[in-house]
Amino acid sequence: MHLPKGFRFSGVSCAIKTRPNTRDVSLVVLDESGVAAGVYTTNQIVAAPVVLSRSRTPSDSIRALVVNSGNANACTGTRGMNDAIAMTELVASQIGCRPEHVLIMSTGVIGRFLPMEKIRSGIVQASQVLAATETGFLDAVDGIMTTDAFRKTACLEMHCNQSDPIRIAGMAKGAGMIGPNMATLLGIIVTDAWLDPHSAQSLLKRVADHSFNCISVEGHTSTNDSLVLLCSGMASHRKPLDARDFDKFEESLTSLCIDLAKQIPDDGEGATHLIEIAITGAQSDADAHAIARNVALSNLVKTAITGGDPNWGRIVSAAGYAGVPIEPSHTHLQINGIKLFEFGEPIPFEASQVSQSIKSQKLTRIELQVGQGTGGAMHWTSDLNTEYVRFNSEYTT
Amino acid sequence: MHLPKGFRFSGVSCAIKTRPNTRDVSLVVLDESGVAAGVYTTNQIVAAPVVLSRSRTPSDSIRALVVNSGNANACTGTRGMNDAIAMTELVASQIGCRPEHVLIMSTGVIGRFLPMEKIRSGIVQASQVLAATETGFLDAVDGIMTTDAFRKTACLEMHCNQSDPIRIAGMAKGAGMIGPNMATLLGIIVTDAWLDPHSAQSLLKRVADHSFNCISVEGHTSTNDSLVLLCSGMASHRKPLDARDFDKFEESLTSLCIDLAKQIPDDGEGATHLIEIAITGAQSDADAHAIARNVALSNLVKTAITGGDPNWGRIVSAAGYAGVPIEPSHTHLQINGIKLFEFGEPIPFEASQVSQSIKSQKLTRIELQVGQGTGGAMHWTSDLNTEYVRFNSEYTT
Repeated sequence: MHLPKGFRFSGVSCAIKTRPNTRDVSLVVLDESGVAAGVYTTNQIVAAPVVLSRSRTPSDSIRALVVNSGNANACTGTRGMNDAIAMTELVASQIGCRPEHVLIMSTGVIGRFLPMEKIRSGIVQASQVLAATETGFLDAVDGIMTTDAFRKTACLEMHCNQSDPIRIAGMAKGAGMIGPNMATLLGIIVTDAWLDPHSAQSLLKRVADHSFNCISVEGHTSTNDSLVLLCSGMASHRKPLDARDFDKFEESLTSLCIDLAKQIPDDGEGATHLIEIAITGAQSDADAHAIARNVALSNLVKTAITGGDPNWGRIVSAAGYAGVPIEPSHTHLQINGIKLFEFGEPIPFEASQVSQSIKSQKLTRIELQVGQGTGGAMHWTSDLNTEYVRFNSEYTT
Repeated sequence: MHLPKGFRFSGVSCAIKTRPNTRDVSLVVLDESGVAAGVYTTNQIVAAPVVLSRSRTPSDSIRALVVNSGNANACTGTRGMNDAIAMTELVASQIGCRPEHVLIMSTGVIGRFLPMEKIRSGIVQASQVLAATETGFLDAVDGIMTTDAFRKTACLEMHCNQSDPIRIAGMAKGAGMIGPNMATLLGIIVTDAWLDPHSAQSLLKRVADHSFNCISVEGHTSTNDSLVLLCSGMASHRKPLDARDFDKFEESLTSLCIDLAKQIPDDGEGATHLIEIAITGAQSDADAHAIARNVALSNLVKTAITGGDPNWGRIVSAAGYAGVPIEPSHTHLQINGIKLFEFGEPIPFEASQVSQSIKSQKLTRIELQVGQGTGGAMHWTSDLNTEYVRFNSEYTT
């Protein structure tokens, strides 16, 4: 793993989570002030750390990001906001910067006050073990996880005209409370490219719309979703990317974020399938996204895939109530490349063949054409398994 | 059960459903032509019987309604439409009326052609056993059911100024594919009141908006939802209700339809809880409905109730992404009368007490105030159980 230059990472355990020796405080620290952009939840019920980070991005003077898992610090009122501010103050005093140059994320149970004594000791400890190494990076990944079954990371290297090779590395967490509007998803992307703060901000929004905003598990938009891009500028001595490299960077960042984003429904709580939904023929891309989302959020579609059941009427009908126009007589459906429905009429197919193709692989690909328009969209989601229900019936108790 | 005057009913078995001796064709026949109104699915993928019935209501000359279960006749193209027309022709020839005076509903699996030979024999048989009796009515109820675990009926008698007592009787089916826009729900309301067709139509729409449009199981709006009101006028020799009686009738019909509608999520596939959601303080009733629907459709809320888990952050956060304004600092939540969240801040509560109150009864009542407005709404839904998942993983296979 080739990490971008200019960052150190750590992740430590301070017993916010009840399971012993589980990392729950992570730090990402820039060697020098860097550029940061952020995209946050669209929920009106917003956790304190989101309010704080949102007010501090975009920026060209960010020095650190602190994350805790196990407690979302959401629905915690004034005390929650004071706790979030205290966390950034403590990080600032540890690494020597101003508190407003520290970003913050939290994830976990909603509605409980943070155990600040534990968190203080966690931040002090995390500040002492910062490292520009893969181990440090992976410790940080562990520290942001909650119900995740596996680590979600991605990295790439991009060759440029005007600088050393640029590196991008990303980590994400999320497995439940994942709606298509940024989910209980934390995403942290670090790069040694240099962008001006406002370009970074608009770039990150575009990238999110093609990646983290195209995934869901159950569609419940969280109070804490945060995606942050941190740029050290160390690959080019802080010289901004030229137009051609910027385009190339956008392409690379998009592909890295799609890679990271897909890992989330792939790890959906209890999921046995990653469902990829490709919509074409809609009147606009926005319409296609609305249809993809509606198909993805139908428990009937999800459970059919769980059971390897070629009950395609559920997919077609889910497209019909997305609130955007479709052309039923120009609707076509394929599952895993097998045609089931064409020009609004069923076509004969071997149910056992479709069933077998669903059951024999983790990925199920749904291709739905909904008319003759040019709008298209992709969406990734999990199936819905009894394990999801069991798990989520007993989360806080 | 006091049935309204002027109707005969039947329900027979013709082997559309695979389970032996299960009724799957029902008839409701008026002794003389009557008034009919209808409210149908908002899905753009619409089953043939819905297209046909929709084109025939409102009307003052309806003689019969035929229903089959076990096959939705949806996504079946031209052949499906011809089959639906043939069904109404056959009923017309059996009872002696014009085909366009026959309404039709179908429910069951999407995307399969109707077994017309079986259905023909079913309609002939059903025409021969029509009866103005409770037995006939209950046979008809059985004939419209699919995955329902119990019959859904309601009836009432209303005293009037200008006529004999008016009776209203209703039957409904539905347990899955239930969205808040009419669900895979069939509802048939018969009354011996007399209304002009256009008043009946606007009345039924208003009533549906307060009853069948306030329920969900998983929120998947079906292709076949149909609610029909049939008026024989026999209580008043076809004299329309006066203004005061009309208001009283609307009130009675609304309460009967709420009663029927609530039975549907109460019978949600695998459901162990009926969840009643009362929203207040929204900026409008429409906003309150949107919030209630969002809370109802959250799998995280549903599974928390399944597990008796007082994870109230899921409820509050679901209100925050409904796409309509709320006031977080004036948000208050009670579950089963126990306060959990007030003025946007958590308040101490005994988790085991809330858990016990959820686990000890079928009904869970969620009361959520989202601001200081005057908008309010009610919504009823099911919890989400492993049984729902198991059942829906293996529906067609």
